Amino acid sequence: MRLAGIDCGSLSTGYGIIDEEGSSLVLVDYGTVRLPSETPFPDRIGIVFDKLNSLWREFKPDIVGVEDIFVSKNPKSALKLGQIRGAAISSAHLNGIRIKEFAPTLIKSCLTGNGRAEKGQVAFMVCTILGLSSRPKSLDASDALAIAITTALRKGF
Amino acid sequence: MRLAGIDCGSLSTGYGIIDEEGSSLVLVDYGTVRLPSETPFPDRIGIVFDKLNSLWREFKPDIVGVEDIFVSKNPKSALKLGQIRGAAISSAHLNGIRIKEFAPTLIKSCLTGNGRAEKGQVAFMVCTILGLSSRPKSLDASDALAIAITTALRKGF
Repeated sequence: MRLAGIDCGSLSTGYGIIDEEGSSLVLVDYGTVRLPSETPFPDRIGIVFDKLNSLWREFKPDIVGVEDIFVSKNPKSALKLGQIRGAAISSAHLNGIRIKEFAPTLIKSCLTGNGRAEKGQVAFMVCTILGLSSRPKSLDASDALAIAITTALRKGF
Repeated sequence: MRLAGIDCGSLSTGYGIIDEEGSSLVLVDYGTVRLPSETPFPDRIGIVFDKLNSLWREFKPDIVGVEDIFVSKNPKSALKLGQIRGAAISSAHLNGIRIKEFAPTLIKSCLTGNGRAEKGQVAFMVCTILGLSSRPKSLDASDALAIAITTALRKGF
C-alpha cells in the first residue's frame, strides 16, 4: 500500500510519499512546493493544485493524510492556509484518493510516543523509521513524511 | 463572452453564469451547492470541487469572479471558508479559466452605485440587470450572479 502526507503552508507546502512493504515503511518521494509571496494568491492555489495533481497521477497513493489544522490566532493566516488546504484536498479528491485527517498531537505521538515532541525529534524519527541517511533539508517535507508515516500506522482506525 | 461568479460559503456555495450579448447581460444558469454540516469537511470540499468542475466543463465560462473575502473575526470560520474557496479556485484553474477577485464593496458599488448597499438592494439590481421576473430563492446564488455581473463590467480593469 502507498501512503502520502501533505503539510500545507501558504508559502511552502511539503509532501511525502512512502510504501508499506511487509512490516517496513520505505521512502518513495518527498519535496516542497514553494509559493513565492509575490505571486497573486489564486495563482499560488493553482501552483499547489497542479503540483499535487501531477504527483498523485505519477505515484498513485492509496491514502493521503493531512494535518487537522490547529486554529491559528490570526484569521488572515487561517484564510490563506485554508485555501491551500482546499486545493490540496481537491487534488486528492480529483484522483479518487482517500483522505485522512490527523491531529498534530496524534502525528507527534505516533512518531515519538509524545504528543508534544519537538519538531527536531519528529524529524529524527522520520529518518530512523524510513532509514534515511540524512534529514530532508525542508522541515515541511519532513513533516509531510511524518504525516505519511502516521497515515500508514493509523489507516485501520 | 461568458462570465461566472462564485459566492463561497462553508454550508452553501452559490454560483451564477451569464453571457455578454452585445450590450446586454443574459442569464445562463445559477444555483447553490448545499454542504450539509454533518458531512466530514474533506467531503464537503470534494462536493464543491466536483459540482463546480462539472459546471465549468458544461458551460465553459471565460472568466470566473470570486469575492475577495473579508477577513472574519473568527479564525475557525476563516479556515473553513478558505478551504471552500481553495476548492472553487482549483476547479476553475483545472479548467484553464481566468480568475478575478473583487472586493465586496466594489461588487456592491458596481451593481447599485453604493459600496455599502444592503443585500436586498443588490439582489433587486441583479434581477433588473438580468431581466429576471423573480429573485433567485437563494441569496448565495443571487450574490454569485452579482459577482458574475461585476466580472462582466470590470473584466477590462
